[in-house]
Amino acid sequence: MPSALRVVSCGLGAIGLAAARLVLQKQSIQLVGAVDIDKAKVGKDLGELIGAGKPTGIKVERDTEAVLKRLAPDVLLHCTSSFLSAVKDDLLLAARLGIDVVSSTEELLVPDHRSPTLARELDAAAKAGGASILATGVNPGYAMDFMAVIASAVTFDVRSARCIRVVDAGTRRLSLLRKIGAGLGADEFQTNMATGRFGLVGMRESVALLARALDLEVDRVDQTVEPVIAVEDHKTPFLTVKEGRVSGLRNHSYGYVGKQTVLHLDLSMYVGAPDPRDEVLLESTPPIHLKFHGGIAGDQAAAAILVNNLHGVVAAAPGLRTVLDVQPPRLCR
Amino acid sequence: MPSALRVVSCGLGAIGLAAARLVLQKQSIQLVGAVDIDKAKVGKDLGELIGAGKPTGIKVERDTEAVLKRLAPDVLLHCTSSFLSAVKDDLLLAARLGIDVVSSTEELLVPDHRSPTLARELDAAAKAGGASILATGVNPGYAMDFMAVIASAVTFDVRSARCIRVVDAGTRRLSLLRKIGAGLGADEFQTNMATGRFGLVGMRESVALLARALDLEVDRVDQTVEPVIAVEDHKTPFLTVKEGRVSGLRNHSYGYVGKQTVLHLDLSMYVGAPDPRDEVLLESTPPIHLKFHGGIAGDQAAAAILVNNLHGVVAAAPGLRTVLDVQPPRLCR
Repeated sequence: MPSALRVVSCGLGAIGLAAARLVLQKQSIQLVGAVDIDKAKVGKDLGELIGAGKPTGIKVERDTEAVLKRLAPDVLLHCTSSFLSAVKDDLLLAARLGIDVVSSTEELLVPDHRSPTLARELDAAAKAGGASILATGVNPGYAMDFMAVIASAVTFDVRSARCIRVVDAGTRRLSLLRKIGAGLGADEFQTNMATGRFGLVGMRESVALLARALDLEVDRVDQTVEPVIAVEDHKTPFLTVKEGRVSGLRNHSYGYVGKQTVLHLDLSMYVGAPDPRDEVLLESTPPIHLKFHGGIAGDQAAAAILVNNLHGVVAAAPGLRTVLDVQPPRLCR
Repeated sequence: MPSALRVVSCGLGAIGLAAARLVLQKQSIQLVGAVDIDKAKVGKDLGELIGAGKPTGIKVERDTEAVLKRLAPDVLLHCTSSFLSAVKDDLLLAARLGIDVVSSTEELLVPDHRSPTLARELDAAAKAGGASILATGVNPGYAMDFMAVIASAVTFDVRSARCIRVVDAGTRRLSLLRKIGAGLGADEFQTNMATGRFGLVGMRESVALLARALDLEVDRVDQTVEPVIAVEDHKTPFLTVKEGRVSGLRNHSYGYVGKQTVLHLDLSMYVGAPDPRDEVLLESTPPIHLKFHGGIAGDQAAAAILVNNLHGVVAAAPGLRTVLDVQPPRLCR
C-alpha cells in the first residue's frame, strides 16, 4: 500500500473545518498541519475546533510559509477565500515549494476567464516548481457545470445546456444565510449587492467552464441576481425570516452566442425553497435530463469533493489545472 | 489549433458504424481508415455502409495489421467483440505499433478482474510501445458504474450502491433483441443462457469497477439472469413478441462483502419495459439519488462515449487504462 498523502489544511472556516475533519477519518491521507489567521483559533488544538472530543496533536498555526517549509506536505488543502486576489500569494508560495494545491476558491475554477495574466503567472510558477493547482467545489465545480460535462460524454453534440439548482437555505449555516441576504429588507439586499462581495461567487465561472467544455462559442456571460421575498414567516436554527423580508436569492447566469442563450444556470437559494434538487438538461443528440433528487448537500458535499480530489491533484501533471483535466473525482479511502 | 486526431475504425457492426459516422462529423478527429472481416463490407466505400449518400473516399479493408502499418493512425477505434480472447491479438498489435486504442470490448473494462495474466501482458506491451488502451461504453462503462463513481465524489463514504437501468428494448436494434432473447420461448431462453454467449456481457465488470472505485472489499461477484415473459403482444420494428413468449431479460448483479450485499445492479431490458431510466442510489453521507429521466439512449450513447474518449486516451499515460484514470469524458468537437 502506498504511504498516506501528507496534507496541510489552510483556512479553518466552515468548509475548511469540515474538510479537515474528513481528512482525519481517511486512511490514505494524513493531516499534518493546520493554518488560520483567526487569533481565536491560532494555538488551539484542531480537535477542539472540529469538536473531536479529543486532541489531534495538531496545533493551529498562523504562518502558512513557515508551516509549509517545516512540514513539506504533499498537498495544501486551501479554503480561505472566494477571491483570486486573496489567495494568489499562498498559491504562488505553494507552487514555488513544489506543493500541490486543492483549493475551494471559486474564482480559481477557470482562472484564465477572469484573470488571464495571473493564470499564466500561476501556471508558469506551478510548472517551474513541479506543483499542480486545482480548484473544485460543488457550486462552482460540480452541480452546475461538471455534471453537465460528464453528461455530454454520451451525446453527439450539445446545442444548449440548462442547469437548475434549488437549495432550501433553511438547512444551511449562518454565514451562507448572510451571503444570500436572508432576513434583510429588499432595499438592504440591493445595497449589499452593489458592494460586489455579496451573493454567490462562481456562477460566471460555471458558465465559462461549460462554454469551454461543451465547445460553445460563448461571446458574452451575464447574470441577474434578485431577492426572493418571504410570503410567510420561516424559522431556521439561526434566524427567522419574517413575511415580506428577503428569504434568499435567485441567480440566473447566462452564456450567449450572439443573441442566443446557449447556457442558462438557474439557482434558487432561499429559506423554504421547495423541492431541493440539482438538474442538468442538455439540448443534445440524444437529449439528457439528469436529476439529483433532494439536491447535492451543500457543505458536506463541498468538503467531500475537496478531500476526494487530493489524490487526483497529486497524480496530475504540474501546472494550473481544471476539473476537466485531472482524473475523474471519486471517493477516496 | 492542434491538428486533428487520425483514427482507424475497426469493426463495422452497429456500434462501430455509428461511431465511424460520428467521427466523420467531428472537426477534431479525422477518420483515415476502416477495417472489417465481413466479406460483404470489404472493398465498399464506408459512405455506402453508413448511408452517407456520398462516398467518403475510405474503402473498407480486411487486414488490420496492414492498415495500421500503412496509415500509422493516432488511435484505433476498436468495436469488434465483447470478449477479451477475441480482441487480444489486435490490442497487442496496436500496443506494439504505439497506437492508442479506444475499445468497446466489455470484458476489457476492468481487464484484470477476469484475466489478470492477459491484463499484465497488455499493460506491459502498451507501456513498451508507448500506447494507451482504454475500454469504455454505456453499459458497462457509464450508466451502471462510472456515474456512481462520479456521484461518490460528493460523499464522505459509501456503504452500498445500487444502480437501476430500465431499457425498453422495443426501441432497439434486432441484434440486441436477439441477445436478450426477445421472441423466444422460456425453454429456449434457458438453453441459450447455458451457452455463455447469450445475454449481456459486462455486468460483472461493472460490479468489479464499482468495488475498486468505491473501495468496497467485495469478495464475491454473482449474477442472476431471468427471462421476462410478455403479458400481451408487443410489436417492434423488427419482430413481434407474442403474449407468453420472452420479451427480454432481467439481470441482477451483486457484489458481496461476506454475506452482505454492498453492490446491486438491477437491469431490466425487455420489449415494453415501462419508465425507461438510469438511477444511481448511494447509501452514503450525504445520501445520493441520481436519475437520468428517460434513460441513457443505447446505441447513440455508446457510439458517442467511444468517440468522446478518443482525445482522452491520447492524453493518457501509456499502459492499460480504465475509465477511472483517464481524463473525465466529455463531448469532443
